[in-house]
Amino acid sequence: NRVIRAPRGTELSAGSWLTEAPLRMLMNNLDPEVAERPEELVVYGGIGRAARDWECFDRIVEVLRRLGDDETLLVQSGKPVGVFATHPDAPRVLIANSNLVPHWATWEHFNQLDREGLMMYGQMTAGSWIYIGSQGIVQGTYETFVEVAKKHFGGDASGRWILTGGLGGMGGAQPLAATMAGFSMLAVECDESRIDKRLQTGYLDRKTTDLDYALQLIEQAGKERRPVSVGLLGNCAEVLPELVERGISPDVCTDQTSAHDPLNGYLPAGWSLGQADERRQSDPQGVVKAAKQSMARHVEAMLELQRRGAATFDYGNNIRQMALEEGVKTAFDFPGFVPAYIRPLFCEGIGPFRWAALSGDPEDIYKTDAKVKELIPDDPHLHNWLDMAKERIHFQGLPARICWVGLKDRARLGIAFNQMVKSGELRAPVVIGRDHLDSGSVASPNRETEGMLDGSDAVSDWPLLNALLSTAGGATWVSLHHGGGVGMGFSQHAGLVIVADGTDAAEKRLRRVLWNDPASGVMRHADAGYQIARDCAREQGLDLPMLDS
Amino acid sequence: NRVIRAPRGTELSAGSWLTEAPLRMLMNNLDPEVAERPEELVVYGGIGRAARDWECFDRIVEVLRRLGDDETLLVQSGKPVGVFATHPDAPRVLIANSNLVPHWATWEHFNQLDREGLMMYGQMTAGSWIYIGSQGIVQGTYETFVEVAKKHFGGDASGRWILTGGLGGMGGAQPLAATMAGFSMLAVECDESRIDKRLQTGYLDRKTTDLDYALQLIEQAGKERRPVSVGLLGNCAEVLPELVERGISPDVCTDQTSAHDPLNGYLPAGWSLGQADERRQSDPQGVVKAAKQSMARHVEAMLELQRRGAATFDYGNNIRQMALEEGVKTAFDFPGFVPAYIRPLFCEGIGPFRWAALSGDPEDIYKTDAKVKELIPDDPHLHNWLDMAKERIHFQGLPARICWVGLKDRARLGIAFNQMVKSGELRAPVVIGRDHLDSGSVASPNRETEGMLDGSDAVSDWPLLNALLSTAGGATWVSLHHGGGVGMGFSQHAGLVIVADGTDAAEKRLRRVLWNDPASGVMRHADAGYQIARDCAREQGLDLPMLDS
Ligand SMILES: NC(=O)c1ccc[n+]([C@@H]2O[C@H](COP(=O)([O-])OP(=O)(O)OC[C@H]3O[C@@H](n4cnc5c(N)ncnc54)[C@H](O)[C@@H]3O)[C@@H](O)[C@H]2O)c1
Ligand SMILES: NC(=O)c1ccc[n+]([C@@H]2O[C@H](COP(=O)([O-])OP(=O)(O)OC[C@H]3O[C@@H](n4cnc5c(N)ncnc54)[C@H](O)[C@@H]3O)[C@@H](O)[C@H]2O)c1
Repeated sequence: NRVIRAPRGTELSAGSWLTEAPLRMLMNNLDPEVAERPEELVVYGGIGRAARDWECFDRIVEVLRRLGDDETLLVQSGKPVGVFATHPDAPRVLIANSNLVPHWATWEHFNQLDREGLMMYGQMTAGSWIYIGSQGIVQGTYETFVEVAKKHFGGDASGRWILTGGLGGMGGAQPLAATMAGFSMLAVECDESRIDKRLQTGYLDRKTTDLDYALQLIEQAGKERRPVSVGLLGNCAEVLPELVERGISPDVCTDQTSAHDPLNGYLPAGWSLGQADERRQSDPQGVVKAAKQSMARHVEAMLELQRRGAATFDYGNNIRQMALEEGVKTAFDFPGFVPAYIRPLFCEGIGPFRWAALSGDPEDIYKTDAKVKELIPDDPHLHNWLDMAKERIHFQGLPARICWVGLKDRARLGIAFNQMVKSGELRAPVVIGRDHLDSGSVASPNRETEGMLDGSDAVSDWPLLNALLSTAGGATWVSLHHGGGVGMGFSQHAGLVIVADGTDAAEKRLRRVLWNDPASGVMRHADAGYQIARDCAREQGLDLPMLDS
Repeated sequence: NRVIRAPRGTELSAGSWLTEAPLRMLMNNLDPEVAERPEELVVYGGIGRAARDWECFDRIVEVLRRLGDDETLLVQSGKPVGVFATHPDAPRVLIANSNLVPHWATWEHFNQLDREGLMMYGQMTAGSWIYIGSQGIVQGTYETFVEVAKKHFGGDASGRWILTGGLGGMGGAQPLAATMAGFSMLAVECDESRIDKRLQTGYLDRKTTDLDYALQLIEQAGKERRPVSVGLLGNCAEVLPELVERGISPDVCTDQTSAHDPLNGYLPAGWSLGQADERRQSDPQGVVKAAKQSMARHVEAMLELQRRGAATFDYGNNIRQMALEEGVKTAFDFPGFVPAYIRPLFCEGIGPFRWAALSGDPEDIYKTDAKVKELIPDDPHLHNWLDMAKERIHFQGLPARICWVGLKDRARLGIAFNQMVKSGELRAPVVIGRDHLDSGSVASPNRETEGMLDGSDAVSDWPLLNALLSTAGGATWVSLHHGGGVGMGFSQHAGLVIVADGTDAAEKRLRRVLWNDPASGVMRHADAGYQIARDCAREQGLDLPMLDS
């Protein structure tokens, strides 16, 4: 079995940092610390791959090593298909992954092409070489919880608690994100091994099988204004109705069980894990029916907690839809997390900005952390995140940092990092990028673009323009994907990564690219009619020809 | 009613030729000589528009007039949404039209967004500002017939004849294209006014209601080796079986009735036009049934003619499918025109290359015609086309020329035109572009990518990469559309236009862009396993990293 790990240090194996960077980031995506199943080239998110197969991987590496600074490599669903003459300000790599003509954009058709070796699922940051491990999900969840605090509690979460379910792959980030944001959390999880895993990594503080004790811990923490997270072994469809019964309400209520997959993702009330495993084989229809009935009870309890004052939202697991199908007519009375908390950020171009130190030296990241605090002195949540992240998040692969910043800050930060490279303050160049899930780069009507003000949820002109603009501006690599996050047929999205190598040429590109990219998100939201975005566009002096019509 | 016509001559109303060019070409698309319904901004192909509405049109013009040479305008479904800082080698305009997230990519959803003013149908060259009138369809049909002659008759069509049906909007180009390619043609058309229209424009030579006389004209022409086109007033579903009965076979057999639309597009055997009109209101189901039954007879006759030796093919009107549904099991025994005749051209990057003279002076086009003949001395079909086009095709709007040339010629021609601008031989710059229907720029499984060798018909990574590459190389404007030609859900495709303004900078861009674009088509076909493309790639020295694996 091959073990891939990006080279560290300042010695180049490619012709320049502009080609060394994609090389290292491709390898970093396959680092065993980063990738879920590196032997299959799977980085994260089911079957999100970094390259189509090992032969393609080797050939990409080979091409990047020889690629000139006026050449561009084309990657088609993880396969290096061509090298073309461009110019120094053009991207070095252009990537298109998993794109299918709409009428054929299904998992069936994709899987067939995948089996035949003709395609690859790129997810969002797997096939575009800018995944940085679980820091991303912790930060995204933190950011959501901070917004919850801002919207409902004047920005102060102390003494407040969140009730949720599910401590799985993504949901396991909830307790750490909650305590970072100042909330206590009660997380109901039916699988003890999931609770234990989060205890071990320090993401979760306590475990119990006793609801009374759990509530006591939360109450105690509330009094002391010292947030605690508690994993309660139990079933949401039992625990939530019980809380309603007892008249106990959290301040915030959400859920991250895998409700989107009623066969495998949600344990029906009253069932044991073993029982469910068995019945999944012998009676899958029965499992689905039982799970959906339990979800209906679960959602009814959430609705009641909402009526009693809890800030309640769907965390993208489709549980409202399931309950609706089981007859809970009011299921959609609580909102999805994007329209409720994330969209106002997107309106200012705020999203999952991130960077990685090509040197491999954690000090390079700590220095950039300090630089961010220096350049954005007035954002306590951001400072808090940086401090907590340094303390509690282990780097996976190349040291990297994620933090949600917007139009007014991204280019400033990128230019500052570039100067730090130039001055020698950082040991080597950094790459700067973001998730495809961002302000101007995604059309995904069941998630990022759910319920747009003007009904333009499904219009995917925007992410395509975003990719063209990043290419025109001179990002180092640009990607266009389909199906990330929500699966085949349901999203189109674009990515970019740009190298800060300390040169003046890079500074010019950074100034354009890291401005235009979030600006295109502000533009998209201003066009949809969001006032925050229109105000932001005016304040930042964007040139949007139809803004006033 | 506003009448738009592009400015002619050398005086600029915008800041440079790089912005004057999209300005004039946008206007040219709306020239009454060019556009089908200019008052609604409809250029061609149903509702293919040049801009979303008149306000958007005015604003685009306004922006182009002030746009700097380091700025880029973004157009989203015909609306100018933003201006961003880029650099002189970046495109001046980036366009995304009609793109929808696949699950929502239907006419219903599109029409709703369109009604609400949120989208626009861009077709292929309407929303991307490089439609040049009916010359395109004549040339495409000519090219197909020339390939038929090459494949079946050693390149010599003389004394041979084509049997077809339909002289409508597109089909009316058949007789002119046939005689240009050296074939005689018998075209069966049930609507006399359609025949008369083609006589008037000189596209058709003769009209008759008598099959015997028609066959006599064709036979006479064959003997004299002087091709003639004859419009026969009749019904294909009657005339073709009659020919079979009599034992008369053409050399080539195809059809361009509107069989794709059995309600409105195909007259059932034995019916009058008036009768059909009436029954469409009173009994639409009955019309569809009768039309499809007639199509079945029509296709059975085509199959029999094929068995008797006629080169028979479907011209993209879906008549095989209709016959299949009526029980003609062998309907797909004759091929579609793309796999049969066009794909081999695509394998060498050959496709609908075109250019327009911004001066408005026809002499500028005639000079480029001569230059093409000088630079490509060894292609008699091309010379023939250029001579015939000059003689028989009227310019619509700005003088323009289309001719199918491939990888080995496009950049050479572009650079030569640029030199002619530089030297003053041409009065003003020319723009150079192509249809979206081209070698590397479209994924359309029911037409351009039907039956790809490796089954990759629906993979749309390729047109997306094509657009990104044209952007990286420095085309003047680049477009990404959805649904052109075959409708919502069924295609994704990219376009580019580049200005030859006589500068050295333009020459560099032309060298890259007009090489990379057809090269990406050769790459796409080489990747799918076509030997012609693989050979072409090797001969032309393309750098395709996985070509030999
Ligand atoms: N919108 C977003 O951005 C976003 C982000 C992360 C996750 N999600 C969604 O959140 C959900 C969780 O994701 P994940 O990766 O953590 O999934 P996962 O399958 O790894 O974890 C789900 C957890 O829920 C537990 N569970 C199932 N039924 C339960 C019940 N009745 N009571 C208590 N616990 C129960 C399971 O034991 C498991 O640990 C998914 O639906 C995912 O799509 C959405
Ligand atoms: N694949 C391609 O690139 C391509 C290009 C052009 C056209 N087409 C297809 O070709 C077809 C024709 O296109 P169009 O724009 O010319 O359509 P159109 O509707 O303008 O013309 C169709 C003509 O067929 C005649 N007709 C109908 N039924 C007949 C019958 N039974 N016998 C004789 N004549 C009959 C009609 O009177 C009409 O003049 C369409 O299906 C179109 O989609 C495909």
